[in-house]
Amino acid sequence: MPDPIITLTTDFGEDAPYVAAVKGAVLLVNPAARLVDLSHRIPPQDLRHAAYFLATSIPYFPPAIHVVIVDPGVGGERAALCIEAGGHRLLVPDNGCWIELAQRLPDPLQVRRLEESRFWRQPVSRTFHGRDVFAPVAGHLSLGLEPAELGPLIEGWAELPIATPRLSPGRIAGEVRFVDWFGNLITNIPADTVGALGQGPLRTEVAGQPIHDRVRTYSEGPPGAPVLLTSSEGSLEIAVNQGSAARLLGAGVGTPVTVESTC
Amino acid sequence: MPDPIITLTTDFGEDAPYVAAVKGAVLLVNPAARLVDLSHRIPPQDLRHAAYFLATSIPYFPPAIHVVIVDPGVGGERAALCIEAGGHRLLVPDNGCWIELAQRLPDPLQVRRLEESRFWRQPVSRTFHGRDVFAPVAGHLSLGLEPAELGPLIEGWAELPIATPRLSPGRIAGEVRFVDWFGNLITNIPADTVGALGQGPLRTEVAGQPIHDRVRTYSEGPPGAPVLLTSSEGSLEIAVNQGSAARLLGAGVGTPVTVESTC
Amino acid sequence: MPDPIITLTTDFGEDAPYVAAVKGAVLLVNPAARLVDLSHRIPPQDLRHAAYFLATSIPYFPPAIHVVIVDPGVGGERAALCIEAGGHRLLVPDNGCWIELAQRLPDPLQVRRLEESRFWRQPVSRTFHGRDVFAPVAGHLSLGLEPAELGPLIEGWAELPIATPRLSPGRIAGEVRFVDWFGNLITNIPADTVGALGQGPLRTEVAGQPIHDRVRTYSEGPPGAPVLLTSSEGSLEIAVNQGSAARLLGAGVGTPVTVESTC
Repeated sequence: MPDPIITLTTDFGEDAPYVAAVKGAVLLVNPAARLVDLSHRIPPQDLRHAAYFLATSIPYFPPAIHVVIVDPGVGGERAALCIEAGGHRLLVPDNGCWIELAQRLPDPLQVRRLEESRFWRQPVSRTFHGRDVFAPVAGHLSLGLEPAELGPLIEGWAELPIATPRLSPGRIAGEVRFVDWFGNLITNIPADTVGALGQGPLRTEVAGQPIHDRVRTYSEGPPGAPVLLTSSEGSLEIAVNQGSAARLLGAGVGTPVTVESTC
Repeated sequence: MPDPIITLTTDFGEDAPYVAAVKGAVLLVNPAARLVDLSHRIPPQDLRHAAYFLATSIPYFPPAIHVVIVDPGVGGERAALCIEAGGHRLLVPDNGCWIELAQRLPDPLQVRRLEESRFWRQPVSRTFHGRDVFAPVAGHLSLGLEPAELGPLIEGWAELPIATPRLSPGRIAGEVRFVDWFGNLITNIPADTVGALGQGPLRTEVAGQPIHDRVRTYSEGPPGAPVLLTSSEGSLEIAVNQGSAARLLGAGVGTPVTVESTC
Repeated sequence: MPDPIITLTTDFGEDAPYVAAVKGAVLLVNPAARLVDLSHRIPPQDLRHAAYFLATSIPYFPPAIHVVIVDPGVGGERAALCIEAGGHRLLVPDNGCWIELAQRLPDPLQVRRLEESRFWRQPVSRTFHGRDVFAPVAGHLSLGLEPAELGPLIEGWAELPIATPRLSPGRIAGEVRFVDWFGNLITNIPADTVGALGQGPLRTEVAGQPIHDRVRTYSEGPPGAPVLLTSSEGSLEIAVNQGSAARLLGAGVGTPVTVESTC
């Protein structure tokens, strides 16, 4: 078996030395660690962005160690967690950004509070636990340390409310959950819930603007017009063939999206 | 021998979860795969940018597996290809962005259409073949699967026209092929074709603006003035010492560049 | 022992093929090389940014090979160096950006001029020594080549002046050294020098604007107000809880920061 993979997801950007310092701190503990960058472009302190990112990428991995550092509360009272779910191990501040992912992974779920400071870099700074706590702990896990050595199981943690669509007779009211680099709008409406509105014609609106065409692939859409399709994650998505739906519709995260039966 | 390297080149950006999902899908098939990021900043759906990128980077690699996902036609009729050339194996949509590279690699060239869906992730989404088709196939190749298992050889594929310079007596008319982050303008004019204009003085213009000095290195140029030199790929390049030629000259990809004998 | 790690730090950005070509040129020499990206987003030709980046990240690594390419003088008279310090080996143009790092690493320091062109890619271009000189040399070092094979020890090199704070009775005058993606302002004032101003009340100003609160962690600050704290590197830092101090104060690299006793 190769050494376990350690993935890194942060909001550090790449011009600052923080990502590099985290990598060094992992490798200092385990020089054979296999680092895989997921992203260092999570928007600063945007926990909901991080939640979506993790929930739609980690499930495609084999069991691995995942270091996730989006940490508005660094150095304060918030706990540092080691989460075991579906064969994965996450090292993450107690900020709720891992919950949406855990809901998609098979049970059991085990959540520990990191307390054993002998596995941390000393001295621990008050502003950079990524380097001083999470990175060295990831290194030790990759060497075979059992999570039980890191600290006690806990049963309560910070929640992170994520908007869910509201269903009423003949109507689903959701919102844009994520906008990607292409300007595609991924909603929080599961594509398979639309069937509940019946077999008749439907009207979909984004910020009050109607989306007329439903297609199966981006390239089926007429260039320049917004179309509705099913995202690679199974939710409703609004896209523009060779264009940006976000720009065309003036939409972003949180923009209302409604689907209504017109019978 | 170490496991083969799998390089990744995409237009996904780093804030979305797409790159991460592709990496997971490779590692799920071969947890020992050795991933190397080339770029995830190809401008969205810019096939000519991708073509230049590949042609000027892959030739410096030892034989490897290269996953290239710039895919405006995802989910439609376009084929998915496995290309063998010069010891390299490319997994790429049938969009022509690999042809300029293949022309720089030694023969033979073999092009296959991916048809054996048993090597794909199931179900295959209609919008994300990077994760569901190309990534798992790369994983299987890295484990030793022969390309012949993936699908049949084909003899026709999508072309991608790339502008070439026009030569007339005493004159070469080309254009800017690529602008890098420094603002250097790399043209499509091979530096060694300029000799055909004779030994006399030459006049070079970018968008009608004359470039007076020819230098060998950036640092030979007077700060602030545009100069002509030979790029690291052997084409004519216009640069500004410690500045941006693109900004100074208001030039970009496609801007006309001419070299004329003034005898 | 695993193969040595080769880290990469450049100002190439990710849309151009330069990073990819460097990686290929390393792997061509040693296909088993273990590449770790530190950053490719050093601002173009910004040697002081690179100096800060290296000094605050490399010390957290185990002994490794570090390729650093920020190279305004490429192709000119500037030397190419191999630096040994504290178990690390740096391959870097002679531009001074490594000196601040070396001052933080244990002695001895050995600096060599790369002269043995048999370890370089041929022909060597005049504009891309990252690919043609530094990358293949890194590959050879990772295979066990001794630095002494690369060229002779030298005793003089390019300096890179870095502003240091001025201390006068009751006053420290420094400046902003680095601004990170969050907009935090890291100064060049070591936090432990502030004690020299005595135990009385202090007045800190950034560009003439007073910073009233001193906190230990970002989250202790009232949202929206700038606060003073100790950075993860031990210097004075000005931050805004869940905001950008750079934007709020209109500050950037070089902005004056003063700390004065008000007794």
